[in-house]
Amino acid sequence: MAKENHGKNILYAQSGGVTPVINATAWAVVDAARKASAEVGGVLVGRDGIVGVLEESLINTAKIAASDLLRLRHTPAGAFGSCRYKLGTPESDPERYERILEVFDAHRIGYFFYNGGGDSQDTALKIAAFSRARGYPLQVIGLPKTIDNDLYGTDFSPGYGSVAKYIATSTQEAALDVASMSATSTKVFILEVMGRHAGWIAASSALGQRSPDDPPHLILFPERIFDPEDFLARVKQTVQSKGFCVVVASEGIRDRSGHFMAEGSGVDAFGHAQLGGVAPALAGLIGEALGYKHHWAVSDYLQRAARHLASKTDFEAAIAVGRQAVRMARAGAGEVMLTLLRSAGNPPRFRVGSVPLAEVANRERRFPADFMSADGYGISPRARLHLSPLIAGEAYPPYRHGVPDYCRLAHTLVKKRLSPFAAR
Amino acid sequence: MAKENHGKNILYAQSGGVTPVINATAWAVVDAARKASAEVGGVLVGRDGIVGVLEESLINTAKIAASDLLRLRHTPAGAFGSCRYKLGTPESDPERYERILEVFDAHRIGYFFYNGGGDSQDTALKIAAFSRARGYPLQVIGLPKTIDNDLYGTDFSPGYGSVAKYIATSTQEAALDVASMSATSTKVFILEVMGRHAGWIAASSALGQRSPDDPPHLILFPERIFDPEDFLARVKQTVQSKGFCVVVASEGIRDRSGHFMAEGSGVDAFGHAQLGGVAPALAGLIGEALGYKHHWAVSDYLQRAARHLASKTDFEAAIAVGRQAVRMARAGAGEVMLTLLRSAGNPPRFRVGSVPLAEVANRERRFPADFMSADGYGISPRARLHLSPLIAGEAYPPYRHGVPDYCRLAHTLVKKRLSPFAAR
Repeated sequence: MAKENHGKNILYAQSGGVTPVINATAWAVVDAARKASAEVGGVLVGRDGIVGVLEESLINTAKIAASDLLRLRHTPAGAFGSCRYKLGTPESDPERYERILEVFDAHRIGYFFYNGGGDSQDTALKIAAFSRARGYPLQVIGLPKTIDNDLYGTDFSPGYGSVAKYIATSTQEAALDVASMSATSTKVFILEVMGRHAGWIAASSALGQRSPDDPPHLILFPERIFDPEDFLARVKQTVQSKGFCVVVASEGIRDRSGHFMAEGSGVDAFGHAQLGGVAPALAGLIGEALGYKHHWAVSDYLQRAARHLASKTDFEAAIAVGRQAVRMARAGAGEVMLTLLRSAGNPPRFRVGSVPLAEVANRERRFPADFMSADGYGISPRARLHLSPLIAGEAYPPYRHGVPDYCRLAHTLVKKRLSPFAAR
Repeated sequence: MAKENHGKNILYAQSGGVTPVINATAWAVVDAARKASAEVGGVLVGRDGIVGVLEESLINTAKIAASDLLRLRHTPAGAFGSCRYKLGTPESDPERYERILEVFDAHRIGYFFYNGGGDSQDTALKIAAFSRARGYPLQVIGLPKTIDNDLYGTDFSPGYGSVAKYIATSTQEAALDVASMSATSTKVFILEVMGRHAGWIAASSALGQRSPDDPPHLILFPERIFDPEDFLARVKQTVQSKGFCVVVASEGIRDRSGHFMAEGSGVDAFGHAQLGGVAPALAGLIGEALGYKHHWAVSDYLQRAARHLASKTDFEAAIAVGRQAVRMARAGAGEVMLTLLRSAGNPPRFRVGSVPLAEVANRERRFPADFMSADGYGISPRARLHLSPLIAGEAYPPYRHGVPDYCRLAHTLVKKRLSPFAAR
């Protein structure tokens, strides 16, 4: 296969929610491909992910200015655009799969690097199978990415470590604020974090603790049924014993009947439907039942884009998978997703491995039950040992005029060769 | 006066909402006093601000471990505790004023350094006048502090520049996230920021713009009446022309009838009263009227405690006022608040000056009308020129195990000499 694709172009695309370090992976692919230009052609990028492939909107990375390329390495979010787009199966959606191969063929694509989460790895597998069935020579390599850390087969997913570092740091900072005001003012602080289905991000809020008594005092995991009475009793107990209480709540917590706590039913001052939010809902609960003065924060995209506080371990992993993809492509690999493997040392080191796409597709890496403390409101020593290395080290971006010097890429597209296709 | 207080102790206290750099001021006071120990005594700190003075809960800074003292310099929030506490006037509250002088006398306090905002400077002035009337020799020096930047007489208040840097950076980061997802997903992002009465913090969100077209596209200042129709029309126009829209809203925006937008009236999934929040209220408005997919964030204490992203200019200013307070105390000064004065250069430099407390008490530094753009949804070039220097430079804390190495001071109190006093 390697020989067959010799000199052909790489198609790289970003898929799903973005991360603080996904562009570092993109940069590494472009950089490694340039250095291997005797064996691989150029790198084209689907604008807005697979949508750009379908629409033949392909960004020519050869046209990116050298100064922008350098800044791409430390720029958060998806510099080429990402997408939330359901491709379906070759059976349900044959036109789109045919179209993808047409576009690949028209632009001499021999390598498809798909940078995404679990669903995207499944799509990558389907495209690989489809191209094989059609006899189109294509090496498909999945690149891991997700802040949710729920990708199967890898020790962690690039993106998670940086979000975890941000949440661990922000929780400590806010806790110091509440602690200093609690004698005469705010007693309870609630931080809502991402992670609708898994507690990986919520767990990271505890990584700044030096002792089990340190804040956050109560973590609400989506894996556990939320029990308002037990929660309120613990808030009260914490305020009485420590003077204040810091709560970190996953956006995905649900009550006994399975309702998301964030599904509010209120109206605002203007009479319009008010969106929920776990943090304000918990704040309402606490205010009403206990009467404590409280504050709440919802970090939302701020956590997912906080490149200014990236984990060096995470950043380096994002680059390592990008480089390794080009290396493995040159060596003829296909139908694999790259993974991060942990050594036994302390602190551990990480190297890049791979698993067959078929093994990771449609599977999920769940947050282990034994990563929670016995009472279900904190993390276990085992979780701390496992997660702490992922936030190690700082990887600051350069600053200009007081803010990080991020790039905003101009998207120079390659000339279209096919007729239009309505992807959306 | 200087001679009279020679060798006497300094009483330092923090007041009101804390900041990312107020402890840098505290550190500078302690450090400068130690170096001037031939002339001034020790530094005692009111635990939880003036409450600690009333209760005679005075922290002995001589007992702080050297390693903690070093970390105090880069630790956010109020390491000795701050307070929201209304002292009243000597006429309405004579017992408390008498008590303060009793405590000062019992602990040989010759210098009172009050680190706070406008109200606190007024209190400092009243204490100065009261001690003068009672013939108690006391040099009162006000140290500026507030993230709101509304202190009169100083070019800026330590705390503001760091919050501004955090908001400017976070806005750019979240904007990159939205931009990369907007083709198939989120079109509008709303960030709620602090500043109930003045637009200083909201304005800082624009400091990462490189051109007027860059996000944030719409800033909602508390100084302007919020007009839902005009706002929605502009959101729609922005999404249509740019593909997405980033809104930064001050928590203090109000409608034509003077109601705060954050005063929600909803109930959550559990039927409990739901606290408002400007960001979710705006999100509801946009969702209902325009149907765009949207996300919102409320940074709350995260912005006020984000020492990990402090402005170097701000951090150095916080230290400079602490050092200068000791210098001026030794020189016999009293009844002044220290200020930061800007030189004409580009970039400007800042030096420490002072104004009589009587000049700053009960005055407010308003956000200038000509700091807004003509349409009222952005900042003017004049604002940019004025504010940009305040976020210049980074002052990173050291890290340990992946999180900033902040101190949590043990509060070793000096022995009480007076009978108890119920301050609360």
